[in-house]
Amino acid sequence: MKNTTQNKKIVSLQNYMLNHPFVLDSGEILENVNIAYETYGTLNKSKDNVILIFHALTGDAHAAFYNNENDRKPGWWDDMIGSGKAFDTDKYFIVCSNILGGCKGTTGPSSINPKTNRPYGLNFPIFTIEDAVRLQKELIDYLGIKKLIAAGGSMGGMMAQSWAIMYPQYVKGCIVIASTSRLSPQAIAFNAVSRNAILSDENFNNGDYYNQKFPEKGLSIARMVGHITYLCEEAMKNKFGRQFLSESSANKNYGFNGNFDFQADFEVESYLHYQGQSFVNRFDANSYLYITKAVDYFDLTHKYGSLYEAFKNCKAKFLIISFSSDWLFTTSQAKEIVDALVKTNKNVSFCEIQSPCGHDAFLLEFETQTKIIKGFLSDLESI
Amino acid sequence: MKNTTQNKKIVSLQNYMLNHPFVLDSGEILENVNIAYETYGTLNKSKDNVILIFHALTGDAHAAFYNNENDRKPGWWDDMIGSGKAFDTDKYFIVCSNILGGCKGTTGPSSINPKTNRPYGLNFPIFTIEDAVRLQKELIDYLGIKKLIAAGGSMGGMMAQSWAIMYPQYVKGCIVIASTSRLSPQAIAFNAVSRNAILSDENFNNGDYYNQKFPEKGLSIARMVGHITYLCEEAMKNKFGRQFLSESSANKNYGFNGNFDFQADFEVESYLHYQGQSFVNRFDANSYLYITKAVDYFDLTHKYGSLYEAFKNCKAKFLIISFSSDWLFTTSQAKEIVDALVKTNKNVSFCEIQSPCGHDAFLLEFETQTKIIKGFLSDLESI
Repeated sequence: MKNTTQNKKIVSLQNYMLNHPFVLDSGEILENVNIAYETYGTLNKSKDNVILIFHALTGDAHAAFYNNENDRKPGWWDDMIGSGKAFDTDKYFIVCSNILGGCKGTTGPSSINPKTNRPYGLNFPIFTIEDAVRLQKELIDYLGIKKLIAAGGSMGGMMAQSWAIMYPQYVKGCIVIASTSRLSPQAIAFNAVSRNAILSDENFNNGDYYNQKFPEKGLSIARMVGHITYLCEEAMKNKFGRQFLSESSANKNYGFNGNFDFQADFEVESYLHYQGQSFVNRFDANSYLYITKAVDYFDLTHKYGSLYEAFKNCKAKFLIISFSSDWLFTTSQAKEIVDALVKTNKNVSFCEIQSPCGHDAFLLEFETQTKIIKGFLSDLESI
Repeated sequence: MKNTTQNKKIVSLQNYMLNHPFVLDSGEILENVNIAYETYGTLNKSKDNVILIFHALTGDAHAAFYNNENDRKPGWWDDMIGSGKAFDTDKYFIVCSNILGGCKGTTGPSSINPKTNRPYGLNFPIFTIEDAVRLQKELIDYLGIKKLIAAGGSMGGMMAQSWAIMYPQYVKGCIVIASTSRLSPQAIAFNAVSRNAILSDENFNNGDYYNQKFPEKGLSIARMVGHITYLCEEAMKNKFGRQFLSESSANKNYGFNGNFDFQADFEVESYLHYQGQSFVNRFDANSYLYITKAVDYFDLTHKYGSLYEAFKNCKAKFLIISFSSDWLFTTSQAKEIVDALVKTNKNVSFCEIQSPCGHDAFLLEFETQTKIIKGFLSDLESI
């Protein structure tokens, strides 16, 4: 990266391709697996100033800075990553990689299947969060890193927990934000509806749509469902209320300002339509299917027998953050993790941040998160 | 109705067709409007023992008893309507009619448009809850009824409120269950997603699908979304938890019981798919569009300037019931109604029933509802 005249820090997407087959939890084997990643800051000589950042469901490796000088927006957590920020690039070497099955560089269903020379589509194997973590471990090994701090929000928090559990010798700190040790049946239900919308799209063509029309309507509906769960009722009230798009409509005489048709009438409808439409331009429907499935399967209690068993061999110090209005991954789910960590005598800090932003808060509430994370990281250094 | 040998009370759907045009809030005019309705119990000579029951979004006029001896299931509120029940057919004459725009007998988008001799489809005019109430008033006039008690859950509670507001001289009692004076933006958002799923279906054909394939996939997705909002997280946990459909799956060795494909893995997914599938056999997609729109538009504050203004001329005694775990139409929304009624010096009783059943509770929690409603009705009689 470098400073530009506009003071934009520039970062480039890097790629690491495995030179061996990669075996998944399902028993399926992937060949030629590529991992796309970005790094921020400088790796020190002892290679122990590393923070591994994990993105959420529809995020990617571009966590901070700009990819080129013409970019209007920086990476998705740019407010948290940089000089003097929560994840301080003056001190730390920060790595973020695109998840297995993604559509932003790491091998996924839109990648070319070396066996057929066509995109995998639904021939891509179902994978788990643990598979995705094992793939990241390949990158970390390649970079020669032996110690790191794992940090992520939402699905990224699942990755962080899995890192601490699967590679206890590597993970000295684990920051889990707006996350859970397993999805509630309600969250699975929302994902099921979203997948159903994609699978039902007339253009889905059993996942083999890369050379034709994309299943945009289904993916857009999936995104709309997602956004309802990312906001909370309070956030929706603050953001939109029951505000109509047009207050000067012809039907005002009847006490209604609606269009009296099936176009979007309310601002909240228009917001969801916009979110759905812009999402289809940047995300692959098959990736959405695979990653939500991995998230549904994630269940530390089920996998290890209990949360106690899951965490008992961890070496990391933990920071668990939840948001008061997050109804997707709730404070009570965060406390389940905290309780299990306390039970296994781990060093754990917990904070519920009061916020009206719902699940989205981990992407919005920078100030409080920064304060808490800086405190946690400075404690870690003093150990 | 009559007692059968199996002791099944039989009721028949009746029809009343308006002999004049019916003007809607939009200014549009409907001709040949039919109202389908059922009645239970006997109308007394003074015609003042009437309870008008309103169904919810996807309900119909068949509120109780059986339509024929081979029916396996009775009407949707049979546990509440009958001899000795909450709405006691030994005392009361109970009327329930299918809403305007519905698909179970009352004129709606699947009805024949007299101007074209083809189903209306999207040529059916957008209507409001108030329109639906004014149409019911035509039926009540036809039956010669001048006094009634209005009672309904969910959307039915909106109808009940509107009756008390629009026809204060007619309504002596008003029972509003699991309802609201206006939808939250979150509830509008869920309806917007549902409508979008129907409008996006490849078979929707701009609403003109009656002679070809129905938009079943879209309607099924809409129903899945609906069911998530009718249950609550606690209800989902109690009902399904994270239970897999098949515990003996091939991937058990990996600590997962999933199918490792995109079929339903979890019981909650299977439940939603079943609900979606069975819904398409009994409901019309266009009706779903129109009725959800009417519900979105319903807003007593917006229409009358304030809830105080809305209720100030009511003559009814009110009973407002909410359910603790209902997150679609919450206790706090019910209390807004109660507060406005208190402010206008109305006689109002309020009860929040502790229930783990979410919004669905009004269709499930019979015992407590019965006790409360019986008390309210007996107080009404003593006035």
